Amino acid sequence: MKSVGDLGEDELIARLCAGLPVSDDLVVGPGDDCAVVGKGDQLTLLKTDAVVAGVHFLPEEEARRVGWKAVARVLSDFAAMGGKPGELLVTVALAPEVEVAWVSELYEGMKSCLAKHGGIIVGGETTSLPAGTPTMISVAGRGVVARSQVVTRSGGRPGDAIYVTGKLGGSIRGKHLDFTPRLAEANWLTQHFEVNAMMDLSDGLAKDLPRLARMSGCGFEIDRETLPLSEGVSVEEALGDGEDYELLFTSVDEIEGTWGTVFPNLPLTKVGFLVAGSGEAIDGGWDHFRR
Amino acid sequence: MKSVGDLGEDELIARLCAGLPVSDDLVVGPGDDCAVVGKGDQLTLLKTDAVVAGVHFLPEEEARRVGWKAVARVLSDFAAMGGKPGELLVTVALAPEVEVAWVSELYEGMKSCLAKHGGIIVGGETTSLPAGTPTMISVAGRGVVARSQVVTRSGGRPGDAIYVTGKLGGSIRGKHLDFTPRLAEANWLTQHFEVNAMMDLSDGLAKDLPRLARMSGCGFEIDRETLPLSEGVSVEEALGDGEDYELLFTSVDEIEGTWGTVFPNLPLTKVGFLVAGSGEAIDGGWDHFRR
Repeated sequence: MKSVGDLGEDELIARLCAGLPVSDDLVVGPGDDCAVVGKGDQLTLLKTDAVVAGVHFLPEEEARRVGWKAVARVLSDFAAMGGKPGELLVTVALAPEVEVAWVSELYEGMKSCLAKHGGIIVGGETTSLPAGTPTMISVAGRGVVARSQVVTRSGGRPGDAIYVTGKLGGSIRGKHLDFTPRLAEANWLTQHFEVNAMMDLSDGLAKDLPRLARMSGCGFEIDRETLPLSEGVSVEEALGDGEDYELLFTSVDEIEGTWGTVFPNLPLTKVGFLVAGSGEAIDGGWDHFRR
Repeated sequence: MKSVGDLGEDELIARLCAGLPVSDDLVVGPGDDCAVVGKGDQLTLLKTDAVVAGVHFLPEEEARRVGWKAVARVLSDFAAMGGKPGELLVTVALAPEVEVAWVSELYEGMKSCLAKHGGIIVGGETTSLPAGTPTMISVAGRGVVARSQVVTRSGGRPGDAIYVTGKLGGSIRGKHLDFTPRLAEANWLTQHFEVNAMMDLSDGLAKDLPRLARMSGCGFEIDRETLPLSEGVSVEEALGDGEDYELLFTSVDEIEGTWGTVFPNLPLTKVGFLVAGSGEAIDGGWDHFRR
């Protein structure tokens, strides 16, 4: 029998989501940064995202930073759709030996991220795990987005420039715990420019760009020389490290000039173009990056 | 340092939720079966609920039944607020050795519950856990409810009759895996009667009724002789077993006669009354039940 470890996450999700029923309210279904549902001009974003001790954070990490990360990951997904955070539900699954003080600090971290970037906690639950089980924090909830500002992964077109915000790679040194979800930037972008496709960079450009390109039915070309590298990071690390939580988007507009006046402290870099082409050239991520 | 095992779930949640910020959109916050948010006549219910192997189901249990349960628990909470299911997000946290076939069957169980009771899956994620970690399934999402039909735990008043649907106790024999969320019943109740307070019975009447009474600022009196017992179950088991997933609600209306004509196969039983009284008499659940 095949295990989920054999299959890999993308293929598992594809199998599970095949043939799911839809409804009149469904605007964007599985496979994007958020689901989009609703009617009228104001739509609802739905998202859930979990962090697990030993996978997404070290068990000895400060709880406050873990809380920030757990919430900021969801906010980053709302940003990637062009939306804003609304109300969140927090599930904390804990073994009985976890200290109450740790959980309180975790919540302080979540609250401080929300106080800064918007959104509130409106419920959730604590679930008891068997002793010794790693802590898991799952954050789910809704965001809001104007129908006219929704951006998906699938709207990219051949000829679009590929942009990334910030610098890539080396997130494990600390940024992965205290990154800034790019809500203000995404909101500004969708208000002022034609953003055709967008997502947040969670698994590294080498994995995420092929996903965006595939969903847009395009190939891509990137210029490795232009990649915005975090200090002391190689091109390979910038492509593969992951957890950048920067925006990856495509547009035919020239954005860099105006961007620099509005967000002078955050680089915006054009790293390549979407091109016409078969999906084959981009299957598998990193190995298939064109040069 | 105090652990979460020392503190207990209710107290931990109370601490974590103290002083959470609110927003204009927040109608009902933490502490009820769902959060209620939105503006206008149609409101949004937000809920998240997790099941863990070894806690909520046996690891060797049929995946299809586990999937049914994971979804039906959330639907039962939508019912308890007077609402209906909308779109759900499913998080499946898995160790790499879990078989793909098990996960596929899990989804079949979720889909069959939704096909029968309404609601669709619009996204979610798979999260990898360290090898050997128990499987966890977290279901989050939104329901819809007419503002005029929202029922909370806190609307009960002294003099209300206390009703329960179905029979209580013995759920572990199987009902906990294939119960029917009482959506049709709750919807009918809120359309035809003044339901002052409602919740679903997940932890047993002995724990859940004191929660409802406390949130309503009431005491309660129940007549143990009237409790609707599942076959072969003692009064103590009916009170304490939990996982009944029946409706517990209060109303001054006489409902039983009409109920019997609409739902002839599901008992409705008046088990007591809310009374004026201090919170003290009901603290702690079972031990403090009045006789």
